Amino acid sequence: MTNPRVRVGVLGCGNVGAALVNTIAEEGATIAERTGIALEVTRVAVRSTSRDRGVDLAPEVFTTDAATVVGADDVDVVVEVIGGIEPARELILDALKAGKPVITANKELLANHGAELYVAAELAGVDLLFEAAVAGGIPLMRPLRESLIGEPITRVMGIVNGTTNYILTQMTEAGVSYQQALAEAQSLGYAERDPTADVEGYDAGAKAAILATIAFGMKVVAGDVYHEGISSITTTDIEFARRLGYEVKLLAVAEQIDGDDGPEVAVRVHPAMVPATHPLASVRDSFNAVFVEGAKVGDLMFYGRGAGGDPTASAVLGDVLDASTNLRKGSSGSFGSLGRARIRSIDDLESAYYLNLEVADRAGVLATVAGVFGRHAVSIQSMEQEGLGEEARIVFITHQAVERDMQSTLHDLRELDEVRGVQTVLRVVGD
Amino acid sequence: MTNPRVRVGVLGCGNVGAALVNTIAEEGATIAERTGIALEVTRVAVRSTSRDRGVDLAPEVFTTDAATVVGADDVDVVVEVIGGIEPARELILDALKAGKPVITANKELLANHGAELYVAAELAGVDLLFEAAVAGGIPLMRPLRESLIGEPITRVMGIVNGTTNYILTQMTEAGVSYQQALAEAQSLGYAERDPTADVEGYDAGAKAAILATIAFGMKVVAGDVYHEGISSITTTDIEFARRLGYEVKLLAVAEQIDGDDGPEVAVRVHPAMVPATHPLASVRDSFNAVFVEGAKVGDLMFYGRGAGGDPTASAVLGDVLDASTNLRKGSSGSFGSLGRARIRSIDDLESAYYLNLEVADRAGVLATVAGVFGRHAVSIQSMEQEGLGEEARIVFITHQAVERDMQSTLHDLRELDEVRGVQTVLRVVGD
Repeated sequence: MTNPRVRVGVLGCGNVGAALVNTIAEEGATIAERTGIALEVTRVAVRSTSRDRGVDLAPEVFTTDAATVVGADDVDVVVEVIGGIEPARELILDALKAGKPVITANKELLANHGAELYVAAELAGVDLLFEAAVAGGIPLMRPLRESLIGEPITRVMGIVNGTTNYILTQMTEAGVSYQQALAEAQSLGYAERDPTADVEGYDAGAKAAILATIAFGMKVVAGDVYHEGISSITTTDIEFARRLGYEVKLLAVAEQIDGDDGPEVAVRVHPAMVPATHPLASVRDSFNAVFVEGAKVGDLMFYGRGAGGDPTASAVLGDVLDASTNLRKGSSGSFGSLGRARIRSIDDLESAYYLNLEVADRAGVLATVAGVFGRHAVSIQSMEQEGLGEEARIVFITHQAVERDMQSTLHDLRELDEVRGVQTVLRVVGD
Repeated sequence: MTNPRVRVGVLGCGNVGAALVNTIAEEGATIAERTGIALEVTRVAVRSTSRDRGVDLAPEVFTTDAATVVGADDVDVVVEVIGGIEPARELILDALKAGKPVITANKELLANHGAELYVAAELAGVDLLFEAAVAGGIPLMRPLRESLIGEPITRVMGIVNGTTNYILTQMTEAGVSYQQALAEAQSLGYAERDPTADVEGYDAGAKAAILATIAFGMKVVAGDVYHEGISSITTTDIEFARRLGYEVKLLAVAEQIDGDDGPEVAVRVHPAMVPATHPLASVRDSFNAVFVEGAKVGDLMFYGRGAGGDPTASAVLGDVLDASTNLRKGSSGSFGSLGRARIRSIDDLESAYYLNLEVADRAGVLATVAGVFGRHAVSIQSMEQEGLGEEARIVFITHQAVERDMQSTLHDLRELDEVRGVQTVLRVVGD
C-alpha cells in the first residue's frame, strides 16, 4: 500500500500544539506502518514566530496569519488548539467550508457555538472531531458517538476538572485547607492565578454541556448548566463525609428525564458526596473520569488524564488519524440533526442532601430545626451533633427531596435565631 | 434522508442473541432517527426452533441451518454469537468471503484463529468487529483500534473475568473462604458447574491474547499466555495484602518490551497484589476493567460490565451500527498486516513477589530461609512472622526479581526441612 500523505495545519503552538508536532515527528513512521497514513505538519499558526517552541520544524512552516493555514493548498486537515471563541470560530467555519476536516480541543467554543459548528460540518460533509475537548486524553467522545449510539443513556456523571479534583484529593488525604490546597495546585501549575473558571465550576460546566449534547443527541449549551463550585468546602465537611462513607467530588451531571412533553435534560455541576464504593470515589489527584449509565449496557467508566500537553495531543492525534482515514475514503462522521434540548430546571430535581449547620448550643434547638425540615416535607435520614463551646454543629443527611423544597428549608433555617449559619450544602449522588 | 435498511442475520439465540433482537426491536426507531440506519433482524439460526426464546419474531425467521443465514440474500450483516471454534470459524469465513461484515463475541475463536479471520476480512474488504469479545459491554476495542492507533502503548492490565473478581471481592469484603465464595458465584449463575475455565485463568488468557494483539498490532494467540488461577488464594493472603495496603485481583497483563531483536510481548494471567490506591483495586464484584498505559496519553482505564446478555448485546449493537455505516459508505476498518509477536518467556520477566511460607517455629529458621533468597539474588523488602502453635508463618515481600531466580528460590525453599509448605506466591503489580 502506498502511504497517502496527509498534510496537517496546526492553529496554535502552545502545550498541546507543540506536543502534537513532536508526537507526529516521533511516531510518524510507526503510524504510517500501522495505518497506511503518512502525516506531515506543513503549516503552524503562531502569535509570534520568534519564540522557541521546542519543535523541530523548518522556520517557513510558521506563520502569524492563521487564515493562510486554513486556506493553504498544502493543508488537508486543520487542528485548532488556539482556544477561546474568536478567531477560532471563524477559522473553523472557513476550514469546514473549504472542505477540510477540523480537529479541535476547544471546549469553550463547542459549549457555546457547538450546534452551529456541527451543522457546518454536516453541510460540508467533512469531519469535525473534538475528543480532546472533554476529559483530555480519555477516549470518550468516540465511544459515546459510535459504540454507544444505539444505547439509551440515562445519566452521565463526570469528574472533568483536574484542578478541583487535585484540590479535593489534597484536602481529603493530606487534611489541608481549601486555601492551602489551592495554593499548592497553583504552584504546581494545575491552577491559574485566577482560579475562578476551575473552582467555581465554569470549566466543568462547558464540558457538561458538550457531554450532554453528545450523550443525548440534543443541543445543550453552557448557559443551560447550573453550577456551584468548591470554594466553600471545608475539611470538616470532608471528614464528616468520610465518616459517613462518602468522598467529596466536584461532579458534572447530565441526566435525561421523561417530561410531560417528551424527554428533558438536566445538566449541573456541583460538589457532591459520592459513596466510597462508587468507582468515581477512587479517582484521585488531577485525574478525570466519566461515569456513564446506560439502560442496556449498565454502568461504564472512562478514566485518565484530563489535561496536559501529551495526553491532550494523543486525543487530537487519534482524531487526526480518524479524519485522515475518512478523507481517504471520502466519508465523514455524522451528528444527525440536533434538536434543542428541553432543560429541566434545577428547582425540579430530586436529590439527597448533606447539610452542615452551626447552631446555638442550647436545649430545644434540634426540635426547632427539625420542625423547619418537616414543614417543607424534607425528611431526615440521619443526624449528628457535636458541641463547639458556645455553639454546636449539626450535620444532617436527608432522604430524597425536591431542590425547591430544600431551598425553602434553607431559607427558613437561615431566618432562625438558633442557626448561626448554614456552612455547607452538598448533594449526595450515586447511592 | 431515506433510511437504508440493514438486514441482520444472527447466528445463535442464547442470552446475547435474544438481548440483541429485543434491543433492536425496542430501540430501532430511535436508532434510525439518530443514525439514519433502519435495522431489521431477518434471520436467526438456532439449534432448535421449538424453544421459546422470549423474542418477538415471526416463526419463519428461525432456522436450524446456520449456513443459509450466512448465504441469504436478505442478510447484509452477520452476527455470530454461537461461541466455540467450529462451526463458528467456517461460518464467519464464509460470510466474509460473501462480502458480508461479521460481528462476533467469540473470544475463544479470536484468541486461537484471530489472525486467519483478520486476514480474511482484510482480503474481502469488509468489517470483522468484536467489541463484545473482551470485557463485554465496555467500549474498549474501538478506542484501542481507533483513538489510540497513534499511541505507543506500553502495558495493558485488565480484570477481564467477572466470576473470579466476584469471588475475590466476596473473600475480601465478606471474609468467606474461596470455596464458599465459589459456591455463591455458582448459585448466582456467575460461575459454571465446572468453574475451571474461569478460576484457572483460561478465559482471561484468551482475552489477554486478543488485547495484546489489538494493543500492540502483533499476532498473539491463547497458547502464548502464561496463566495461574485463584484457587489457592486464601483469606489469610487477602488479609495480609490488605494490611500491607494491597488488594488481590486476577489480572491479565500484556506488555511490550524492547528485546535484543526488536519488540517483544509478554502476556500472562495471574493473581496479583495491586496497591489499594490503584484504580484497578476499586473494581468490585463482577465488574471488569482494563487499565492501559500509553507513552503519551498516560494512564487510562475502561470500566464496566464484562458479561450478561444486555451489556454484551449493547457492544454487539454498536458494532452492527458501525459495520452498517461502513457498508453504506462502501468502506471498512483495517487491521493492517499483523506480524507474529516475539513472545518473552515468563522466566525472563521481573516482578516483586509476595510469599506466604509455613515454617517450623524454632530458632534459626528465618536465617536459613533468608539465606536461600540471598543465594538466588532475590532481595527481601519486608517480612512479617507470626506463631501458629508448633508452626509459624512468614510472609515476605521481595524487591523486583527475575522470575527464574524466584522459581529457583521457591524450589530450594521447598527442599528445606524447616519449610512445611509454600502456601501462596503472588506477584505485586502496579506499584
